[in-house]
Amino acid sequence: MTTRLDEFESYRARMNLRVAEIDHIGIKRFYSLDSGAYHDGALSGKTKELLGLVASMVLRCNDCIDYHILQCVKAGYSDKELYDAFNVALVVGGSIVIPHLRHAVESLDLARAKTE
Amino acid sequence: MTTRLDEFESYRARMNLRVAEIDHIGIKRFYSLDSGAYHDGALSGKTKELLGLVASMVLRCNDCIDYHILQCVKAGYSDKELYDAFNVALVVGGSIVIPHLRHAVESLDLARAKTE
Amino acid sequence: MTTRLDEFESYRARMNLRVAEIDHIGIKRFYSLDSGAYHDGALSGKTKELLGLVASMVLRCNDCIDYHILQCVKAGYSDKELYDAFNVALVVGGSIVIPHLRHAVESLDLARAKTE
Amino acid sequence: MTTRLDEFESYRARMNLRVAEIDHIGIKRFYSLDSGAYHDGALSGKTKELLGLVASMVLRCNDCIDYHILQCVKAGYSDKELYDAFNVALVVGGSIVIPHLRHAVESLDLARAKTE
Amino acid sequence: MTTRLDEFESYRARMNLRVAEIDHIGIKRFYSLDSGAYHDGALSGKTKELLGLVASMVLRCNDCIDYHILQCVKAGYSDKELYDAFNVALVVGGSIVIPHLRHAVESLDLARAKTE
Amino acid sequence: MTTRLDEFESYRARMNLRVAEIDHIGIKRFYSLDSGAYHDGALSGKTKELLGLVASMVLRCNDCIDYHILQCVKAGYSDKELYDAFNVALVVGGSIVIPHLRHAVESLDLARAKTE
Repeated sequence: MTTRLDEFESYRARMNLRVAEIDHIGIKRFYSLDSGAYHDGALSGKTKELLGLVASMVLRCNDCIDYHILQCVKAGYSDKELYDAFNVALVVGGSIVIPHLRHAVESLDLARAKTE
Repeated sequence: MTTRLDEFESYRARMNLRVAEIDHIGIKRFYSLDSGAYHDGALSGKTKELLGLVASMVLRCNDCIDYHILQCVKAGYSDKELYDAFNVALVVGGSIVIPHLRHAVESLDLARAKTE
Repeated sequence: MTTRLDEFESYRARMNLRVAEIDHIGIKRFYSLDSGAYHDGALSGKTKELLGLVASMVLRCNDCIDYHILQCVKAGYSDKELYDAFNVALVVGGSIVIPHLRHAVESLDLARAKTE
Repeated sequence: MTTRLDEFESYRARMNLRVAEIDHIGIKRFYSLDSGAYHDGALSGKTKELLGLVASMVLRCNDCIDYHILQCVKAGYSDKELYDAFNVALVVGGSIVIPHLRHAVESLDLARAKTE
Repeated sequence: MTTRLDEFESYRARMNLRVAEIDHIGIKRFYSLDSGAYHDGALSGKTKELLGLVASMVLRCNDCIDYHILQCVKAGYSDKELYDAFNVALVVGGSIVIPHLRHAVESLDLARAKTE
Repeated sequence: MTTRLDEFESYRARMNLRVAEIDHIGIKRFYSLDSGAYHDGALSGKTKELLGLVASMVLRCNDCIDYHILQCVKAGYSDKELYDAFNVALVVGGSIVIPHLRHAVESLDLARAKTE
């Protein structure tokens, strides 16, 4: 069964390829800077993915949440750890984050179902 | 010498006392929920402080940044680790975060100077 | 006929049940604080729903708008009163609110059609 | 004694005069639309001031908060009513609103001291 | 073939007609102020459309992006010029803008396909 | 006489030097990407400065506004052109932008006074 998370992943992959065709050095460098920000450094890549997830939740971007949920699952976070991160985002960002919390919980369930 | 970080801390302490005088159960519970969000749980309190710092930077709140910088210094983060977190915030939030990056770097320097 | 407002309500109900299964005291308390914020107090619950609606519009969250539209209709606001609140949100938040104004007007029409 | 609220009022008055010198029909019309949004209509001007206050708090604009606090005090709101509105803003907007809650409480205290 | 851009245009047109039926002088004046903001003045209407596009991207509003993409195509901007504007939005707004960049690139491709 | 614009410029210069001492490749690359975004390309650097100014106004960042006002003055924009750009920002961003409009008008006056 194709879920909305699968659809997001294929749309994202397809459009990132389209963006990569654009001959603009600034856009290309931004993409490279973005992926570099989550590599191991003084902080582990795993920790940085969690930072990216909470930033995405307080800024209320569902596509960014889905991407970082998938990365956090790959990085080995447990549900309990991710719920704890969701809670920080909820308290910092307030009830306006609740629709994105519902989205994040559903995305996490879908991501777990994929990997079972 | 009294720095702007000292002034922030004393203003914050004084006004939190003033807010605590307000007889409103919702506001009191929010404060309690807020401090609870950074206690050890599935994630360590130390990790959650870093989540709070990055959330504050992408939401561009200097007072919140100052509070979390002080907490992160107490929690034992090195400068290199905090710079790595600053970088995640900068890439997620963009150049509009730069004035807050300057503020955060200055606050970190002031916080280190205090504890030396 | 099932409208997008009905779909929102059933998705919201289903996911709130899913979130309620999560064993996290912070998230549970936040939900309780959130519903408490709209109870009668020094201000009436009815007035607070209108505050919630305008806050949702300026923060540009369609799901939050739909929820508060439904609550405001239940609380007995007339269309003219709600349009007046929409106008405050539009002036405070600017033309970036216009897509959410269109959404709010449509949601209000759907909510009225349900209760006829 | 001149307070920061007095300074804000005199800066605001001086700069609004300066802006009024600008010969731009769009800016002039926006100012007129803005003041019109808080006149009595289907909702009372008093209710709309409270909507403006909560919108300003969740959008985290201290100058806007100060302006609407002064208007709400003139409109006759009690402290208890304003604390109830602060609470809605806090729950909707989250802990990132706390520095603005501190500011709002202080501004309200200063506004009351002026009128005593 | 009907694309999502066509669907947006017909939804927007239909709901703007519905909003126009609302007898509220503030809302009517806001709409008029909004369209006036993009007329030729000290700056050309063409330049202002680009300002509107970048503002929509950093504020992360897909409907606003689609509207301004269509206007910018009508105004005669080349793809290369629009990519350069996308890049400013991306750098100012950060990686949280990336999903909206993907959306904007797709909308531009759809708009070009319509006019061929 | 030293104005707040002079103080901003010297603080900005001093802290950018401090940030430049930080040995973090991501932060260094972001700074380089940021300055590159305003170089001549398919759009002129002059046009891009105006895009940066309007983005800063709708995102409500006074330091960013001051920086771009100075750049726009250097780039040769007239007051009338800048007022027209301010108006786009005001209409897109709403009355919450008004305090930043006052700031921008004052900064522009200070910038003109410097160069006379």
